[in-house]
Amino acid sequence: MESKDTRSELIRVGTELINRSGYHATGIDAVLKLAGVPKGSFYHHFKSKEDFGLAVVDHFADRLERNLARFLDYKEVAPLERIRDFLDDRTARLAQGQFTRGCLLGNLGQELADLNERFRERLEGAFKMWQKRMARCLQEAQQRGELSVDLDPNLTAGFILSSFQGALLHAKTTKSLQPMQDFHQVIFDVVLRRP
Amino acid sequence: MESKDTRSELIRVGTELINRSGYHATGIDAVLKLAGVPKGSFYHHFKSKEDFGLAVVDHFADRLERNLARFLDYKEVAPLERIRDFLDDRTARLAQGQFTRGCLLGNLGQELADLNERFRERLEGAFKMWQKRMARCLQEAQQRGELSVDLDPNLTAGFILSSFQGALLHAKTTKSLQPMQDFHQVIFDVVLRRP
Repeated sequence: MESKDTRSELIRVGTELINRSGYHATGIDAVLKLAGVPKGSFYHHFKSKEDFGLAVVDHFADRLERNLARFLDYKEVAPLERIRDFLDDRTARLAQGQFTRGCLLGNLGQELADLNERFRERLEGAFKMWQKRMARCLQEAQQRGELSVDLDPNLTAGFILSSFQGALLHAKTTKSLQPMQDFHQVIFDVVLRRP
Repeated sequence: MESKDTRSELIRVGTELINRSGYHATGIDAVLKLAGVPKGSFYHHFKSKEDFGLAVVDHFADRLERNLARFLDYKEVAPLERIRDFLDDRTARLAQGQFTRGCLLGNLGQELADLNERFRERLEGAFKMWQKRMARCLQEAQQRGELSVDLDPNLTAGFILSSFQGALLHAKTTKSLQPMQDFHQVIFDVVLRRP
């Protein structure tokens, strides 16, 4: 494998394993075995397990941002529909595995926010980016008269993000799609109401 | 110590440690040391670490149910105010430790829902109990004409529970009270609106 491909493959496998079992429970040996990469090559790309974990978070956040841009900047569609499409897309991806994996940001936020400040800062950055992009969309909906101006766009975007993560946790714990459906219904029928 | 006191003390210390570090990272030895209890005595009360962990969850769920009853059955206060008081009380407790511990149900749901079906079932039971008690309160508010009858009480209660857990995760990850305040504002000013 090319060096760049090796790095990508390690991150791909790392994302998969960390998302499934958490950061602490994921051993480098398991990553190497699944990726078919020798140990020396791993340390050529990453200084430590922490360094590797942070690269996994960065990679996830980059992909999330591209995905957010793809949906939320798509001006052909009304702003609130863009948010709905984005959340539906994420829900569909997560539902594929019966919510066994959940969202990497939520999983690692829960596991590491109190234990590792470097991780916490990256996760916070990704949450803020997500919130900001949704807030912009809500503002656009207000400008177009499609959303009540009583709602603060930034506060509401933060609430949607929180509630989405909470619905995921609820779905994971009850092994049911119901909390995602309830989330969808309350957000779109009640919170994001027309003026 | 009396045998009953020993069991209570083990559960108290276990709750503290499991809530802080998670189930897997909590060793029995650390529990014994902090509780000042010899190993033999532990195995007199619990068959295994799993058995102990389940007792911790049961104890937490019992306390939660008593607490829910104390707030939500308190008929002197209007039903929506009872829900508000209950959530404010939980938020205040959690804010004391800068959200470092979070809610035991949410923490263990995140960590164990996919790994241990016995834990998952207990956690699901506690979530359902919480949801049911809030739904009853919402229904009462509707009967008194204090809440729009367009809202489905059970669905809305599930949504409030999800969103509360999500706001906690968001608060923990950003080390900020803001997500709890946003949660509070959207739930009480927007979702639980008067008819």
